Amino acid sequence: MTALTETTLPSGQDLDTAIADGRRAYELDRKHVFHSWSAQAQLKPMTILAAQGSYVWDGDGNKLLDFSSQLVNTNIGHQHPKVVAAIADQAAKLCTVAPQHVNDARSEAARLIAERTPGDLNRIFFTNGGADAVEHAVRMARLHTGRPKVLSRYRAYHGGTETAINLTGDPRRWPNDRGSAGVVHFNGPFLYRSSFYAETEEQESQRALEYLEKLVAMEGPDTIAAIILESIPGTAGIMVPPPGYMAGVREICDRYGIVFIADEVMAGFGRSGKWFSIDHFDVQPDLLTFAKGVNSGYVPLGGVAINEAISATFDNRAYPGGLTYSGHPLATAAAVATINAMEDEGMVANAARIGADVLGPGLRELAARHPSVGEVRGLGVFWALELVADQTTREPLAPYGGSSPAMAAVIASCKENGMLPFANFNRIHAVPALNVTDDEVAEGLRILDAALTVADSHVN
Amino acid sequence: MTALTETTLPSGQDLDTAIADGRRAYELDRKHVFHSWSAQAQLKPMTILAAQGSYVWDGDGNKLLDFSSQLVNTNIGHQHPKVVAAIADQAAKLCTVAPQHVNDARSEAARLIAERTPGDLNRIFFTNGGADAVEHAVRMARLHTGRPKVLSRYRAYHGGTETAINLTGDPRRWPNDRGSAGVVHFNGPFLYRSSFYAETEEQESQRALEYLEKLVAMEGPDTIAAIILESIPGTAGIMVPPPGYMAGVREICDRYGIVFIADEVMAGFGRSGKWFSIDHFDVQPDLLTFAKGVNSGYVPLGGVAINEAISATFDNRAYPGGLTYSGHPLATAAAVATINAMEDEGMVANAARIGADVLGPGLRELAARHPSVGEVRGLGVFWALELVADQTTREPLAPYGGSSPAMAAVIASCKENGMLPFANFNRIHAVPALNVTDDEVAEGLRILDAALTVADSHVN
Ligand SMILES: Cc1ncc(COP(=O)(O)O)c(C=O)c1O
Ligand SMILES: Cc1ncc(COP(=O)(O)O)c(C=O)c1O
Repeated sequence: MTALTETTLPSGQDLDTAIADGRRAYELDRKHVFHSWSAQAQLKPMTILAAQGSYVWDGDGNKLLDFSSQLVNTNIGHQHPKVVAAIADQAAKLCTVAPQHVNDARSEAARLIAERTPGDLNRIFFTNGGADAVEHAVRMARLHTGRPKVLSRYRAYHGGTETAINLTGDPRRWPNDRGSAGVVHFNGPFLYRSSFYAETEEQESQRALEYLEKLVAMEGPDTIAAIILESIPGTAGIMVPPPGYMAGVREICDRYGIVFIADEVMAGFGRSGKWFSIDHFDVQPDLLTFAKGVNSGYVPLGGVAINEAISATFDNRAYPGGLTYSGHPLATAAAVATINAMEDEGMVANAARIGADVLGPGLRELAARHPSVGEVRGLGVFWALELVADQTTREPLAPYGGSSPAMAAVIASCKENGMLPFANFNRIHAVPALNVTDDEVAEGLRILDAALTVADSHVN
Repeated sequence: MTALTETTLPSGQDLDTAIADGRRAYELDRKHVFHSWSAQAQLKPMTILAAQGSYVWDGDGNKLLDFSSQLVNTNIGHQHPKVVAAIADQAAKLCTVAPQHVNDARSEAARLIAERTPGDLNRIFFTNGGADAVEHAVRMARLHTGRPKVLSRYRAYHGGTETAINLTGDPRRWPNDRGSAGVVHFNGPFLYRSSFYAETEEQESQRALEYLEKLVAMEGPDTIAAIILESIPGTAGIMVPPPGYMAGVREICDRYGIVFIADEVMAGFGRSGKWFSIDHFDVQPDLLTFAKGVNSGYVPLGGVAINEAISATFDNRAYPGGLTYSGHPLATAAAVATINAMEDEGMVANAARIGADVLGPGLRELAARHPSVGEVRGLGVFWALELVADQTTREPLAPYGGSSPAMAAVIASCKENGMLPFANFNRIHAVPALNVTDDEVAEGLRILDAALTVADSHVN
């Protein structure tokens, strides 16, 4: 790992004191903190003492390049001074009010978001995170249409609460599956592992649409409230939809009066080099869910952007949903500062440029040299490396839903060489901040190069 | 309303500027903000410009006594300087890390909470609010027992997401009711409107337990994962459980291996004059959900306190749930500061004293003089006035699930005289901050006195 060269952390804290504090935090964590998605007794979590820009400092004071953006949420990097200042200012002014009262931070955040969402998605319902955004979007769609079912794709993640986890198409749903009514899953386009025997992107797109069209016919169009899709599926593998697919889904939705929900919790707020990933496809959803990047996760926040038609459904009929912290002043003040910083500093354009000119080409160059790389996919600062034991059979380096010694070794190599990667099954995602520099990307590529050499040794 | 005597707000902002900002916020709100539980076109929301201690300032600069604590969450009052400072400090240090990493603010918050929860509820799973706390508690109970059903009472609120709203026993569930499997509702004790033809608290308690016991037998004990109860039902009417009831529920749970979930989202963190309301009954739940008061709502936070047995279920088997902001540093730092401030300033004891010596007696005195008051109920700073059109028939001043001109007039009177009340159906709740002063309570009682005179004019 990167050798220690400083005795203070970016926060100004003395390093030795911070390390001692970190040890105590670790002990308390093991005693009192129950962690997400984990077997509690098997955890050896990494401590994070500090963070700045594209870097974090672990419990031993090692500086690591954050190529994970944590859970792909710190879109403006860590500790952006403008947003830190905005949080302190709002805290001094007014930390919280109930959702029924008007508050200026909330109003301004709603305006900034509505100005950026596609088409007439002009009303914002704020939640605390992504899962509850999805819960409320689905509720709006069901009540707007009066229909029960929602279609979602396999290889997708929509959150951890009841509706959201049932919509999820990844193994995290399995242990929660109560056979809940009202959700039907389908295969989406994913040429590298095509469900449709397709050989080109065009074929994959067309066949995936035919399949979806038939599914709608068989399920009964009048029973379907919504189709929910991540605009670019994130945790499931950053499979950019092929040309024509999203427009085709829009067309099916229009034909049958089905609400199109774009889940932009991970894909939104600049991640793919546009404000929203749906913008790459020139398609307008009816509802759009967001969280994470909206304020870089500095304060918990999520929400739903609602089009005029669905909003009007609840003009004179109460919308039956809510939460104590809807439109929380501190969270929305952080969103205002984040969106303004993204805008003022050209971060979305930087993400696009990095993807097109630096990170994309760099990852493709690695793929050309490393037999363990089956495919490189992505846009902006949203990239996946699909690792395989065999480029011909495409056998993944870890099974679907699982890990493997090979993947563990790849991740360990990244950390040893000073990088925090985002890993899922047989994939490594390169998902730095939007404002990552060329040099930081170059550093990340060097570390990935070494990790892929480790992966290569596990190729059949 | 209280006449304007100052030209600056407590935040230091110039009042005229703030009023102009508030006007703009109102306009943007009406254009872009979608509100909870409301028909959007029928709203005329109040703007809040500032807040301090027990007071808020509305859009015209009027100072109002906050007897609502917003949504019964600002337990330490508004803008507590220690918590404001802690938020700014943590923001400057480290706003966010992913839930899998150890963080000192989260560890310390978990320790402080675990030290205060009853018995061996020593592990804390953090969420963003109350609804997701309930979602995860129910999931833990279902997986721990391997059983499908959860019992919850009518006249209860548990949150807005799918599982939470289905558990809810109030009219907000109705428009969301998809006949979801796995929830059975029952009548809890509520002597004033007894479901059991009881005439004393003892009878009500005993009969409610007999009823629950029979329900469990009829539903099949081996099909029941959990019984969830607000330790003191909040929004539904602050019905303090009668002697023996909670212990009786505990006993039924023990007998049949059912998980007892205490929902302390509203009742917890000092609201009733003890750290948790369940402490009044000398009963230990298996899971305890919290939110709101844990950090006074200054930053969105909720969670589940888990006992050793249930935690151990997930020692070597992954807990299949999570969320991006679980254990968020900024939110948990606010919890640390809030709990320490409550402790250092004796706020929980103050809440108990206010209830026993000032607010409780004061409300009872009002009830004795006003024919519109059917019953006064509560503890600590957690009180309900049940308003009736007729003390003999107990006909409520607004129907269950609805409002009425009489109730609207009562609420309007409170606001005109300078108070923000918490109202639900035919009830006014007096739920100030834990650190409310005697003088502030006296002011609130005077305003309620006038409002009840309005209510009296609607008595049959
Ligand atoms: C696409 C998508 N939707 C929803 C969620 C759920 O968001 P949260 O974890 O904030 O509940 C996530 C989280 O990773 C996500 O990636
Ligand atoms: C007892 C209880 N449980 C759960 C909730 C839901 O909490 P939240 O609004 O933070 O989702 C509430 C909110 O009022 C509550 O009072």
